[in-house]
Amino acid sequence: MVTTAYSLGILQYIPFFYVIWSDDLLSASEISVVKKTIEQDASLNPEEKQQLMLWLNRENPPKDEEIKSWKQTISHSQIKLIENDTYPLTSFSQRLGNAHCAGCEFNDHLKHIEINLGIQPNHYNHLFDVEVIHERTSKQYDAEVLDNLLKGSHGALVDSFRKFIDQPIFEWDIDRDKEVFRNRVLEQVFLLGEKGYGAMAYPKDFGGIENMPAYAAIFEHLMYVDGSLAVKFGVQFGLFGGSIQKLGTAKHHDQYLKNAGRSKLLGCFAMTETGHGSNVRGIKTTATYDASSDRIIINTPGQNDNKEYIGNALHSKIATVFAQLIVNGKNEGVHAILVPLRNEKHEVLEGITIEDNGYKLGLNGVDNGKIWFNQVKVPRENLLDKYGEIRKDGSYFSAIKNPNKRFFTMLGTLVGGRICVARGALGGAKMALTIAVKYALGRRQFNDSIKMQEDLIMDYPTHQLRLTPLVASAYVYHFALEELMKQYSDNSKSDKRMIETQVAGLKSVITWFASDTIQECREACGGKGYLLENRLADLRADVDIFTTFEGDNTVLLQLAAKGILSDFKAEFNSAGFSSVLKLLQSQLSDKLTAINPLYSNKVDAEHLYNPKFHQHAFNYRTRRLTYTLAMRIRSYIKKGVPAYQAFLKVQTHLLALGKAYSVELAYKEYLKVYDGIEDTEYKDLMKKLGSLYALYQIRLDAQWYLEQGYIGSSKSKAIRQRVERLSSELRPHIEVLVEGFGIPDHCVTAPIAQ
Amino acid sequence: MVTTAYSLGILQYIPFFYVIWSDDLLSASEISVVKKTIEQDASLNPEEKQQLMLWLNRENPPKDEEIKSWKQTISHSQIKLIENDTYPLTSFSQRLGNAHCAGCEFNDHLKHIEINLGIQPNHYNHLFDVEVIHERTSKQYDAEVLDNLLKGSHGALVDSFRKFIDQPIFEWDIDRDKEVFRNRVLEQVFLLGEKGYGAMAYPKDFGGIENMPAYAAIFEHLMYVDGSLAVKFGVQFGLFGGSIQKLGTAKHHDQYLKNAGRSKLLGCFAMTETGHGSNVRGIKTTATYDASSDRIIINTPGQNDNKEYIGNALHSKIATVFAQLIVNGKNEGVHAILVPLRNEKHEVLEGITIEDNGYKLGLNGVDNGKIWFNQVKVPRENLLDKYGEIRKDGSYFSAIKNPNKRFFTMLGTLVGGRICVARGALGGAKMALTIAVKYALGRRQFNDSIKMQEDLIMDYPTHQLRLTPLVASAYVYHFALEELMKQYSDNSKSDKRMIETQVAGLKSVITWFASDTIQECREACGGKGYLLENRLADLRADVDIFTTFEGDNTVLLQLAAKGILSDFKAEFNSAGFSSVLKLLQSQLSDKLTAINPLYSNKVDAEHLYNPKFHQHAFNYRTRRLTYTLAMRIRSYIKKGVPAYQAFLKVQTHLLALGKAYSVELAYKEYLKVYDGIEDTEYKDLMKKLGSLYALYQIRLDAQWYLEQGYIGSSKSKAIRQRVERLSSELRPHIEVLVEGFGIPDHCVTAPIAQ
Repeated sequence: MVTTAYSLGILQYIPFFYVIWSDDLLSASEISVVKKTIEQDASLNPEEKQQLMLWLNRENPPKDEEIKSWKQTISHSQIKLIENDTYPLTSFSQRLGNAHCAGCEFNDHLKHIEINLGIQPNHYNHLFDVEVIHERTSKQYDAEVLDNLLKGSHGALVDSFRKFIDQPIFEWDIDRDKEVFRNRVLEQVFLLGEKGYGAMAYPKDFGGIENMPAYAAIFEHLMYVDGSLAVKFGVQFGLFGGSIQKLGTAKHHDQYLKNAGRSKLLGCFAMTETGHGSNVRGIKTTATYDASSDRIIINTPGQNDNKEYIGNALHSKIATVFAQLIVNGKNEGVHAILVPLRNEKHEVLEGITIEDNGYKLGLNGVDNGKIWFNQVKVPRENLLDKYGEIRKDGSYFSAIKNPNKRFFTMLGTLVGGRICVARGALGGAKMALTIAVKYALGRRQFNDSIKMQEDLIMDYPTHQLRLTPLVASAYVYHFALEELMKQYSDNSKSDKRMIETQVAGLKSVITWFASDTIQECREACGGKGYLLENRLADLRADVDIFTTFEGDNTVLLQLAAKGILSDFKAEFNSAGFSSVLKLLQSQLSDKLTAINPLYSNKVDAEHLYNPKFHQHAFNYRTRRLTYTLAMRIRSYIKKGVPAYQAFLKVQTHLLALGKAYSVELAYKEYLKVYDGIEDTEYKDLMKKLGSLYALYQIRLDAQWYLEQGYIGSSKSKAIRQRVERLSSELRPHIEVLVEGFGIPDHCVTAPIAQ
Repeated sequence: MVTTAYSLGILQYIPFFYVIWSDDLLSASEISVVKKTIEQDASLNPEEKQQLMLWLNRENPPKDEEIKSWKQTISHSQIKLIENDTYPLTSFSQRLGNAHCAGCEFNDHLKHIEINLGIQPNHYNHLFDVEVIHERTSKQYDAEVLDNLLKGSHGALVDSFRKFIDQPIFEWDIDRDKEVFRNRVLEQVFLLGEKGYGAMAYPKDFGGIENMPAYAAIFEHLMYVDGSLAVKFGVQFGLFGGSIQKLGTAKHHDQYLKNAGRSKLLGCFAMTETGHGSNVRGIKTTATYDASSDRIIINTPGQNDNKEYIGNALHSKIATVFAQLIVNGKNEGVHAILVPLRNEKHEVLEGITIEDNGYKLGLNGVDNGKIWFNQVKVPRENLLDKYGEIRKDGSYFSAIKNPNKRFFTMLGTLVGGRICVARGALGGAKMALTIAVKYALGRRQFNDSIKMQEDLIMDYPTHQLRLTPLVASAYVYHFALEELMKQYSDNSKSDKRMIETQVAGLKSVITWFASDTIQECREACGGKGYLLENRLADLRADVDIFTTFEGDNTVLLQLAAKGILSDFKAEFNSAGFSSVLKLLQSQLSDKLTAINPLYSNKVDAEHLYNPKFHQHAFNYRTRRLTYTLAMRIRSYIKKGVPAYQAFLKVQTHLLALGKAYSVELAYKEYLKVYDGIEDTEYKDLMKKLGSLYALYQIRLDAQWYLEQGYIGSSKSKAIRQRVERLSSELRPHIEVLVEGFGIPDHCVTAPIAQ
């Protein structure tokens, strides 16, 4: 029997009031939930109601002494908080009431407060100095349901692939010697090809199922096995095989595609040169058509013009070589030509020199090399001639007359690969988050001196804040990439320019996200994260280069930004740049007037968690950056500054726009999936993840939103608090969330994740 | 002879006006410089003056057509801009005038504009569509002068050390096998010890010169040779030797210190356990004094309580073991005991188990291992007993009665090591910046179609913005660490608590800076940066763990923040927490009233480049964060929330304060050095570096400053522009700046840096 000054009716509310006022966190709209509960509570007498209502006045909050006395009531009760009760705080209140008056009727209304405010034990368990029975994770959600959501339409295929990679040859291991490592990865690629996994994106006639989205899912899963494997797989089947599929014509498909898909013909994709990486159009390798012999002569003009960093270079028999095609003395621009590199005995052919690129930070299972060509002759038919051909009469022909357009059409075929790169990087991030979260749910460090056990590091607010927004982002990016891949694979849409812009942006944003996330996970696991056996170090080293290959992120973001500018041009279907600007301006001014002080200082939870607010903010940023960018460029051009120089001067602006656009896009695609979820409980979880992502992103650009007056000081602070609060609210579900990524247990071999 | 509508007097001003108005960048105060020049220009007639003045009206700027006509005048002249002229724009103007009127008198006044506005060719060279004669670097500054500035008082020693490491044994190389790598590093450590470099911080009697600052400079240089070498060197001489020096007494010094310094006795520093890294006080290894045998028994109680990640574990003969010292059944807290590990034949002694920690992301030349002790007996004398001893009669004695204070006094001896860790990481960052800048000064990519040559990537604004603030930061952090080391080594100051707080903060901020910087450099070098031969990948992997070891950054920042809170307590010499708060509050409100709208929207260059503004901003942030932190904690405590829980709730606030404090500190220490520079030209350069650092930092926290109303929108934007502009202004000096780091050429072996 507890002695207390409070009546039973009030006593049962005490734990709630203590939690509410200790943190001063609840907003007006949330307090109204409590008020309503009290009003409708028939078990309270009028005096009790009046007293409780008095304690809900935000203008005149309860005195500290009052709060302290609640605290003492709780402490003296010696009652323990049990986190895995369905309604821990309500249950706590019930037991507090029982101690006071055994057998008295319990006030079931309290549940409403707990449900409607969404207060989680980890919001308040630190407030109780009695021992808290911690739980590793909540049982509210099921990881399998999340996994199914992520797998989308290719569930069966992914499931069978997960089983397939559960065999010794795919066990992750440390091979420090590159030759040993490369041979192991080669064997893995052989097996994957043999079983038909390489050809998945090819047409049925060539061993495939013509399913690029499923191919992307497989590619992501290979990251769980090993980064080098994923990349070598991508080079062989995506880049090399893909170049035949997409740049070649029937004769090439018939001769090469099946063998490429089966790993029977290993090839490489020789585009980058030592002197030219990002600027592909400037590559120096020449492919000169010699009419007399009806052959194409491939040549590396200078010592620095060799192909560089070519994956599969040491194992390949043949290469798709990108070169300036010269026909009848005229440079027709960059084209791709199949050039045999080695004979059956794997001896390098005459005129060809290949060197190993040597050790890298990561991906040492991939054989990258440099290739020089000295007047190497190949048949005319080796030109991959879908977009430009040399006719029998020795003349050049292309259905795309504009060389610029022709070049970008060819490069456009690479876009699918870029989605896969982003997908692979994302897979690395998911893996790292899984390991870091599992470690944080087992690792304890420091404690309150009154407790025997140290605290789980996952229960530290800083740890929640460093990992949870990243988990939420991984969900958002997953769905965004799935959606984008669907659109890309939809052959009914022939104009892929919009998707190219979108992919350029998302590839950049997501590979940077992945690289940063893995780094954060490494640091979150301390020294343990630095040991190779725990995979994080390896993931970090492997994924690092994803920000550079298949298009350097800085270059891609500028490409995306330029795409956005042209999109606007197209969107308004206007001839000149200035009329575009006029339209833009009028459209923007409409939007801008919407930002009144009431809006820019709206801080209630409902508003801050509303996807409409997030979308409005993202869209405002993209539009505004587009407009100011266009205005700046116009201003330079009007003053006579050449366009090239004008674009240089606004380079940082271009990057900002590219990023802003990508974030808006990712969230928009995510919401499409979110809208389709029917189960309300999971929908609620997904809403939290989306809100956390969105608020976290707005937070990252808060200085810009503040500068623009789009958000005011109080809103900016409220957003920061909401990011922290959501991170803490998701704490009970964090394990389910990472398990929802669906990484097979046999891949999560890191000792610290056990 | 150029045909132009402009008179000679006006013509000579045209290039300046074109540059000024194309960018709209100059502020009112800068325009006044131009006005003054015109006023004092006797060569102009009144009409010319009037015309020029009209073109300087910011309210009514020249029309675009006018600017275009200037541009055409310049273009038609066909005159080339020569960047390495002393005053390129003035010289350009002169030649423009000469073309118009050969032999006419030249207007020398224009130099004033060029000097006073500090406009650099890279501000405007993109505006000229004539071919610009680019220069790799300006000759205005001398790298040697900068190097001498950085070397400070230990120039001679550093110079001789640079020569010493120029020998084959110190040549950087790739060793993938850890055994081979470790043996190489071991040989290097032997040689360094033999030559007396290990003992530098020890007293003269033990082979040293008692010079910790010089030791730190040597340590940084070892990073240029190899990260593993620096770390193993630090473990042997700093941690192991240092523990004997600082925790031991005369008997230990006599017996061990000389041999430790000479590498004749290899030892390790066994503090961290698998179960306890950050929370050293919670380590489980016991050291129980057994009076009957007069020995101390070292024991590992549980499987997870082994020492972990102990550097030098596989090569050592002995270890300084940290354990809970139990004397007469009482736990006296953590103490250090010397425990022999191996005999002369290098066989592990009885009761001891040592395992290799295996491969890591980096530092594979360091032999990290795990150590278990099973009831290992050592003589009572092996207790390093400077701060706590076991007397002959078997009783425990310490002059420091408070166990808490005793523990922190012992740990305080590690502070010098933390400065070295920051210094080493900084060395890695300098090395990476040197490589990335040299690459960017040789690498060309993309161009304007009208030019033959592609542009240097260092001439891209985004590239300047990604590297230049980092170069500036490296200078600031270098001087901050030098100053801090001086203060730490000053034996006249016995109370090191303040320095501990400072070092905890700077170690965190600088190691994160280094890790991020090397990553940025890796990405800035694209795929080339990923190759091990170019060192960046290796530096990245090695420096990564600097954010974790010798105190995890997240934990250290909280330590720093708590130190700041206590400092305030001490500062006001007040008994209670609440009176501290009252004082804080009154002091702050004084400061806060200073932020009036005029100040928060002051955007002129003079103000933005003024160190007083930067210091005020940094100080405002620290004070404000301290105050709000104290208020939040007080509020929790008043409501009955236990202190431990209250601190948990404000954890992210603690981190923010720790960082803010460190940035303020670094800048303050930097300004001390800056103030002492006499040469005005170098002082000007250093001012630019300092301003860039400060504005870059304010920019990083702009959302906070905006939330607080400390800066307004226009000021925030102006700061962003100034960061971009300074980055571009320093472009001509970027090579000298990285060469000023003084990294010996023989260490910069990266092929891409040649």
